Amino acid sequence: MEDPAPSSGRSAFVWLVGASQVVGLASVVLTGVWMGHFRGGFAWDGTAQEFNLHPLCMVLGLVFLQGDAILVYRVFRNESKKNVKILHGIIHLLALIISIIGFVAVFDFHRAAKIPDMYSLHSWCGMGTMILFCVQWVLGLVFFLLPVASSWLRALYLPFHVFCGLVLLAMAVGTSLLGITEKLLFSIMPTYSKFVSEGVLANTLGILLVCFGVLLGYLITKEDYKRPPNPEEEALSVHFKTLTEGGSPTTP
Amino acid sequence: MEDPAPSSGRSAFVWLVGASQVVGLASVVLTGVWMGHFRGGFAWDGTAQEFNLHPLCMVLGLVFLQGDAILVYRVFRNESKKNVKILHGIIHLLALIISIIGFVAVFDFHRAAKIPDMYSLHSWCGMGTMILFCVQWVLGLVFFLLPVASSWLRALYLPFHVFCGLVLLAMAVGTSLLGITEKLLFSIMPTYSKFVSEGVLANTLGILLVCFGVLLGYLITKEDYKRPPNPEEEALSVHFKTLTEGGSPTTP
Repeated sequence: MEDPAPSSGRSAFVWLVGASQVVGLASVVLTGVWMGHFRGGFAWDGTAQEFNLHPLCMVLGLVFLQGDAILVYRVFRNESKKNVKILHGIIHLLALIISIIGFVAVFDFHRAAKIPDMYSLHSWCGMGTMILFCVQWVLGLVFFLLPVASSWLRALYLPFHVFCGLVLLAMAVGTSLLGITEKLLFSIMPTYSKFVSEGVLANTLGILLVCFGVLLGYLITKEDYKRPPNPEEEALSVHFKTLTEGGSPTTP
Repeated sequence: MEDPAPSSGRSAFVWLVGASQVVGLASVVLTGVWMGHFRGGFAWDGTAQEFNLHPLCMVLGLVFLQGDAILVYRVFRNESKKNVKILHGIIHLLALIISIIGFVAVFDFHRAAKIPDMYSLHSWCGMGTMILFCVQWVLGLVFFLLPVASSWLRALYLPFHVFCGLVLLAMAVGTSLLGITEKLLFSIMPTYSKFVSEGVLANTLGILLVCFGVLLGYLITKEDYKRPPNPEEEALSVHFKTLTEGGSPTTP
């Protein structure tokens, strides 16, 4: 199927997707450098090195992969919807697994170091984001990948699923920024105001995460970049749904 | 003009707008209580009491009033577009003035207390938000209130203006959460993890701000709540624009 967007719009789209990937990957790399170079590297032994896996997993899973899982609907907007849907689910599953590792890392570190859990705004926002992310993943699976929900129910839920996806991405970026601020004030409060390299690097990471969120938000919400309606696909979907529900198709 | 939305949708809209106002006002009140009761009140004398005006002005101006300035396009979607546009501009002007007072308060306090400026992620995000907010306000005035830009240019700029408005609101909420975390760690780091009332109150404020952002985001982006197209208004607008540009109207 041909792309109805004019070539200038298509060219801007390619550049914006490219920019989002550069910014997103740079964020993951910068998190790795921050934790690896400035904070002593990584381990799974209850020490601060286990904590260091937390920011890396969250930025990789909950920000970068979650963003890219949404973006596949725009990048592959002319491919088979079923395949794109499966890819969307797989990347989200990967994001979920990595986020859970990051989540366990911080609770494990807190337990070993006898640090109380869930008292900070970062932890409140992070817990809210993780719960919503899990609910969204399960509901997405049940509604859109398993033949359980009726077409009517799918159509009713779809706008909420899309809106919650964007809210989740914004919450993941916001919670990451809170985590950056918390970590900097816990670690380098006396020197942070002297523009030491760790502080500047972590601030830059925060700005890159905001840029990633804004680029993704633009690419996802811009009308021209949305999947064009495909009557053939819709008819097939209705046909399939009607068969699985035991009725007769409304379209041939 | 009649509202084309069904009554159930209209009822949900009213409840959601009501909830957004309760949550938004509660955020402003909680900021006032935090700064007034726990942080020693307000003054304009270069002390910490002058700093206390900063969170209050930012939450009131850059979050609550900015959000409501956008919301008027949904609440008054069946009123004259010109009046709604003027109201949108006036509330934004108020938001801008209050934000500038809040901005000056923190720089003035830093100068008096010899605290360096612009080293934290909160300050980087805040400065970015304020600059973008000023640019957005000036461009909005030039493009949509003064008869300067052509209809073609207005139509081209409108989607960017709308997108940047939502980005600005998200940035304002995110920067506020960073400010809350910074203030708590500077003021009550040793007791924050003991769930003291100041910490719980400030965390609750953060969650309320997130709820305000999510409610506003939903109300603004939901298709059913958008302003219905009005051919009469469009024709008048084209007529007015053509007259001010010296051409002849394309519609009578």
